[in-house]
Amino acid sequence: MMPGQALARGACRMLMRMGFAPVTEFVPGPGLRADVFALGPKGEIWIFECKSGLADYRSDAKWQGYLDWCDRFFWAVDGSFPAEILPEGSGLVIADPYDGEILRMGAESRLPGARRAALTRRFARTGAERLRRLLDPWPQELTGGA
Amino acid sequence: MMPGQALARGACRMLMRMGFAPVTEFVPGPGLRADVFALGPKGEIWIFECKSGLADYRSDAKWQGYLDWCDRFFWAVDGSFPAEILPEGSGLVIADPYDGEILRMGAESRLPGARRAALTRRFARTGAERLRRLLDPWPQELTGGA
Repeated sequence: MMPGQALARGACRMLMRMGFAPVTEFVPGPGLRADVFALGPKGEIWIFECKSGLADYRSDAKWQGYLDWCDRFFWAVDGSFPAEILPEGSGLVIADPYDGEILRMGAESRLPGARRAALTRRFARTGAERLRRLLDPWPQELTGGA
Repeated sequence: MMPGQALARGACRMLMRMGFAPVTEFVPGPGLRADVFALGPKGEIWIFECKSGLADYRSDAKWQGYLDWCDRFFWAVDGSFPAEILPEGSGLVIADPYDGEILRMGAESRLPGARRAALTRRFARTGAERLRRLLDPWPQELTGGA
């Protein structure tokens, strides 16, 4: 497991505890791939970017692109990350491979209804398709699948 | 695999080919459990009840309850089932463990927007949670999970 994936797993466990349903590596919009994208009990949409260290963080030129695709945005980092350099307004999760904890909520910026509905539908289809492929692996070419 | 599960697997493969995302054993509303519940590319919601034979069909007292929870309703049966006894208006899929084919579309009865949105969200959360538990099995009691 790569360091970023370990953080994602911990963040996902935290989210499941909180009643959020997480999917990793989800594409909310063109050119984006959220490390963790989660849907809350009331339809809240939260995005988490996992950063294994400063270099990983500094090479991310597109994180602000995620802000238009969620109600709240969070960084997920380990305990050694210098969290004080993270931008104000973004949330902060300290994670390890086993769990995570929200230290600072991301500022809320509620999605417009139409985008929320479209994202929820795409998320629904992505999760169900991945689940189905795990439960019944068979030649992808027969499904025309993604 | 029980006969009903074999039909469900074939129906799911058919749905994946069609670009629909299926989830089995989904609870759309109180007291109901749809054998296959699928979300289409345009947000269409279809429900499939799998019947392994006449006895299975005749003992189902609640199928009409599903009509309020989908845009189209289908039976999924094998080739030996006497399809002529199925009620008019309901769809018909002939399935085996490997695939399925729609012989008759279910009549369309479009869901109200609010119910569609609520079902889509519940479906999204169910699929993502099941996927997550498969990818990262760990003690359920720690998640408070369903």
